[in-house]
Amino acid sequence: MSVTDELLANAERYAAGFDNGALPLPPAKHVAIVACMDARLNPYGLLGLSEGDAHVIRNAGGVVTADQLRSLAISQRLLGTTEIVLIHHTDCGMLTFTDDGFKESIRQEVGSKPPWAAEAFADLDDDVRQSVRRVLDDPYIPVKDSVRGFVYEVETGRLREVK
Amino acid sequence: MSVTDELLANAERYAAGFDNGALPLPPAKHVAIVACMDARLNPYGLLGLSEGDAHVIRNAGGVVTADQLRSLAISQRLLGTTEIVLIHHTDCGMLTFTDDGFKESIRQEVGSKPPWAAEAFADLDDDVRQSVRRVLDDPYIPVKDSVRGFVYEVETGRLREVK
Repeated sequence: MSVTDELLANAERYAAGFDNGALPLPPAKHVAIVACMDARLNPYGLLGLSEGDAHVIRNAGGVVTADQLRSLAISQRLLGTTEIVLIHHTDCGMLTFTDDGFKESIRQEVGSKPPWAAEAFADLDDDVRQSVRRVLDDPYIPVKDSVRGFVYEVETGRLREVK
Repeated sequence: MSVTDELLANAERYAAGFDNGALPLPPAKHVAIVACMDARLNPYGLLGLSEGDAHVIRNAGGVVTADQLRSLAISQRLLGTTEIVLIHHTDCGMLTFTDDGFKESIRQEVGSKPPWAAEAFADLDDDVRQSVRRVLDDPYIPVKDSVRGFVYEVETGRLREVK
């Protein structure tokens, strides 16, 4: 039995106890979260979110690239969110390599480098600030009154704001 | 009090009851989820995931663009995941507009079109198949034995595989 099959069995149990069928499409709390994909960072538990509350956007690092700007533009323009919360975290995999090194290792194996920037970073707080800046600088995201960046500490469970 | 401040108060409660400080960086279940950012789709509840289990990658639509391929490459190459689960869902915002219309409406307001494709889609199952195909066609993701696509039904809570 694959892990995917295990997860499907869990999904059947979820459906059996399901009572959220009437939730509307727009997020009730009008907030969009952008967070790292890290397995230890559970935005639902951490932020007390339930089904229907918030858009949750995630990728390697919780960095802001074109696709997160796309998702945020859709979130605000079509679905009415107005606050943005960005979350990086301690002990992140993105702190363990460099773009150049990672892409060169791929080139040696595959024969070419991937077309994307790997978005590795050396300083956690600086990268949170860069992510906030990328949002603030984007002309297609209309509402920027509340764009705040945080570091989640995987060792303590605490969320620390980056100023 | 902003919604963000409310979420921060929830985060303090989470930290107060935190006992996951020793979880390792690589996901215990060796699986990466790619899902839509939709507020009604909670991958933790749906798939029975806990802190430490899986990488969770999310964006508008659950579509696969360059940034999801980047995240999946990092997930597999640096953190040992081997299965990929893609999840779109019914009543998705991405079914309600076209790329051309959305970008033109932005141009009329901002004065220029955004550089990204909006990734809207007209057929849910076809877009799941396209997302699976984009993963399978990517040369930089090494493990493709288990790349499966699903539609989550927001009305019933059920997860349906797309073949």
